[in-house]
Amino acid sequence: MPPGPSQDEIRRQNLGALLRHVHVHGATSRAELTTALGLNRSTIGALTADLAGAGLVSEGAPKETGRAGRPSPVVRPESNRIHAYAYSIEVDRLRAARVGLGGVVLDRRELDRPRGLLVAEAAPLLAGAVKEMQQHVPADAVCVGTGVAVCGMVRRDDGLVRLAPTTGWVDEPIGAALSAELGIDAPITVGNVADVAAFAEHARGVAAGCDNVVYLYGDVGVGAGIIAGGRRVTGHGGYSGEVGHMKLVRDGERCECGSRGCWETQIGENGLLRNAGRPGAQGREALLAVFDAADRGDARAGAAVRQAGDWLGFGVANLVNIFNPEMVIFGGTMRDLYLAAAAQIRSRLNANALTACLEHVRLRTPKLGDDAALVGAAELAFERLLADPLDIG
Amino acid sequence: MPPGPSQDEIRRQNLGALLRHVHVHGATSRAELTTALGLNRSTIGALTADLAGAGLVSEGAPKETGRAGRPSPVVRPESNRIHAYAYSIEVDRLRAARVGLGGVVLDRRELDRPRGLLVAEAAPLLAGAVKEMQQHVPADAVCVGTGVAVCGMVRRDDGLVRLAPTTGWVDEPIGAALSAELGIDAPITVGNVADVAAFAEHARGVAAGCDNVVYLYGDVGVGAGIIAGGRRVTGHGGYSGEVGHMKLVRDGERCECGSRGCWETQIGENGLLRNAGRPGAQGREALLAVFDAADRGDARAGAAVRQAGDWLGFGVANLVNIFNPEMVIFGGTMRDLYLAAAAQIRSRLNANALTACLEHVRLRTPKLGDDAALVGAAELAFERLLADPLDIG
Repeated sequence: MPPGPSQDEIRRQNLGALLRHVHVHGATSRAELTTALGLNRSTIGALTADLAGAGLVSEGAPKETGRAGRPSPVVRPESNRIHAYAYSIEVDRLRAARVGLGGVVLDRRELDRPRGLLVAEAAPLLAGAVKEMQQHVPADAVCVGTGVAVCGMVRRDDGLVRLAPTTGWVDEPIGAALSAELGIDAPITVGNVADVAAFAEHARGVAAGCDNVVYLYGDVGVGAGIIAGGRRVTGHGGYSGEVGHMKLVRDGERCECGSRGCWETQIGENGLLRNAGRPGAQGREALLAVFDAADRGDARAGAAVRQAGDWLGFGVANLVNIFNPEMVIFGGTMRDLYLAAAAQIRSRLNANALTACLEHVRLRTPKLGDDAALVGAAELAFERLLADPLDIG
Repeated sequence: MPPGPSQDEIRRQNLGALLRHVHVHGATSRAELTTALGLNRSTIGALTADLAGAGLVSEGAPKETGRAGRPSPVVRPESNRIHAYAYSIEVDRLRAARVGLGGVVLDRRELDRPRGLLVAEAAPLLAGAVKEMQQHVPADAVCVGTGVAVCGMVRRDDGLVRLAPTTGWVDEPIGAALSAELGIDAPITVGNVADVAAFAEHARGVAAGCDNVVYLYGDVGVGAGIIAGGRRVTGHGGYSGEVGHMKLVRDGERCECGSRGCWETQIGENGLLRNAGRPGAQGREALLAVFDAADRGDARAGAAVRQAGDWLGFGVANLVNIFNPEMVIFGGTMRDLYLAAAAQIRSRLNANALTACLEHVRLRTPKLGDDAALVGAAELAFERLLADPLDIG
C-alpha cells in the first residue's frame, strides 16, 4: 500500500471519483452522489462546481422524487461536448466512432476491410472517417483523446501492434500512423479488442459489478479480456489473454501463430468452416451460414457446430479452473457459437470444471454487443480524463 | 477509483506503509524511509514515534554512512516481540512456525503426516506444536494472528477447505478446528499453499519487484499462485489457480478430481512414478529417487523425467500465453522436475509460447524454498496488522 496522498491529490481523486460515477451511471442527484461516494454535501457541491466550471458536467432540474423537502439537483456528464474518438480494427471491417462522456456513441462510420489491408492503407481510411465526423461536431466540443481496439497483440507501453496473425500485421505502430494522418500530437491509446471489450462490459455492460470476469472474443482467432479482483489483467507487456493459443491437442492442426493444436484451430472461423466442409469460405457471413444450416437440419453443419461447441466448453472449463470467474462472456463469433451450442458447452463445463470453481459462474452474451469494442476503445481515451479531470485540454 | 480518504484514514495508511516497508525490507534509516515513501522528515518522525509507542518498531543506532553530517536513526521491525503463528498442511507433513514481523522464522516444528489423516486428527497435532513453542516465547511478546497454508481449494470468505483431493479433505473448517484446539477467539486466515507461497516470494523472495508472476507448486497435485499487476489473483470464491486441472488430453488418465486428462496426471507425483515404472511408490522421497535414478543413467527413469518435463513445458507455455508473466517460479516438486528437465521445458516453451508473451519471462526456483508456505501463511496473518497498525491487541 502506498503512503497516503496529499490534499491536492485527494481533491483530484475526489474529482475523478465523481466524474467517473456520472460517466458510468449517467445523471445522478447530488444526494445520491453523497451516498455513493461517502463524501459530505458541501464537498460534493464544491466538486460539482469545479467540474461544471471545466465544462465536464452540468447541473440540471432535479428528478421528481415524490418525497417532501427540496429535491436534489442532478449532475449530468456533458456527453455532447466532451468526447473521444474510437477506432476498431477488425478482420473484416474498420470502424470509427465519436463517443461522448458517459459512453454514448454520438456518431459512427463503418468500412469493409479487405483481408490483407496494410496499416499504411488502413490509417488514411480511418482518419478520413473521423475527419468526416468532425464536420458535424458542435463548435464548443472538446476531444479528450483517441482510443483504438485492434484484433492483435498490443504492447502496453507504446501501443505497437506486435502481432496480429489474423490481419497479417507485425510490429505496426498504428497509433503513430493515425496521429500522422490526423495531424495531431496527442497520444493515441491502443488496446487489444478482447481487453477493451471486457473493459467496456465491466464498466457499463453485462459484467457491471462483477469483479472476476473472462470475456471471450472470437473472429478468425480467439482471445480473452480478463478482469480479476475488479482490475484488468494485462500481463507484463500487455499480451495476456491469448487463450486462443492454449494448446489442447498435441500435434494438432497447424495454427496461424506457427504452432499446432491451439484452441482456436477448433473454435475459430477456419476450424468451424473446415469441419463444416466449407474450407474455401471465410468471414462472418460464411460462419453465420453454417449456424443457419445447422439450425435447418444440415447434418454436416450440425456436427461441426456441436464439435466446436464441445471444444468451446472444453477450453472454457480450463479457464474456469484457472480464473474462478463469476461470469464468462461470449463475444464476437463466440457469441454465435455459444447460442448455437449451449448444451454441449454446459455439459463439457459440468464434466471438466471443478465444482468449487464453477458453482457461481454465469454464462452471458455481451450487453453492448458489437459496440463493446468502440465503447471500450473510448474508455481507454477517457481514462486519462478520469484520472485527473481538470488537466484536460 | 474510490473517493479520497479522510485525514484519519491517511494517517493509518501512512502508518501501514511505513510498517510494511520495514516488514519487507528490514532495518531502514529514517532518511531512506523519507525517500521511499515520499513523505517529509517530520511526518516520518511522527509515524515512527507512533509505531514505536505501540511496540511495533524500535529505533536504533544509525548506520555508519561514511558521509558528513548527522547520520539518520534506523527503524527496525520488532521481530522478536511481534509475531504470528503459521501452519502448513501438506500431503506428507504438518508444519508449524512462529514467524516474527519482518518474516523471520523464530521457531518451528515439523511432523510426519500419514496420508489419510483427518482434520480432527491433524488439528490437535498442530495445536500441540504451537503450545510447545509458546513455552519459549518472551513474556512481552504479542501474537497478531494465525495463518494456515493448505494444499487444497480454500473458500476465501471463511477459509473452509472445499476440496483437497490429495489429502481427501472435503468441506473441512480447519480454521475453526484449530481455534477450538488452541482455545482462541481470533480469526485464523486460511489460504491455498500455492497462493501463499506466491505471496511470500512476491513480498520478499525471488519475485520481489515483479508485478506479473506465476508460481507453480507441485506435490501430488499441481496448483499455481498468480500475481497480476502486483496483486494476488484469487478468483470469485478464492479458488483460482487450479492449473493442475487444465485438461490437456481428451480422454486421458483419470485424475483424482474425477475428470480425465488433467495436466497434473502427467507432471504430478502419480504420473511420474507411474511412467517411471514405480506405480506402487508414493511421497517426495520416492519422487527424488526417480530423479536420482535418471541422473545415474537409468533409462526408464530418464525417459519418465523427460516426458514429464515436456508436459511441464507444454502447460507452462499455455500459462505464459494466458498471463504474459515476467517470471515463472517452480516450487515444491515442480522445482525438482524443472531442475531435472530444464532443456525439455525450454524447448517446449520456445515451440509453443507466443514470442511476445515469452520474451521477458524468467524461469526461477523459489528463494524462500520450503519456507515459502510458512512465511506466506504468516503474511496472511500480518496483513490485518499492516492494514491498520495501531488496531492490534
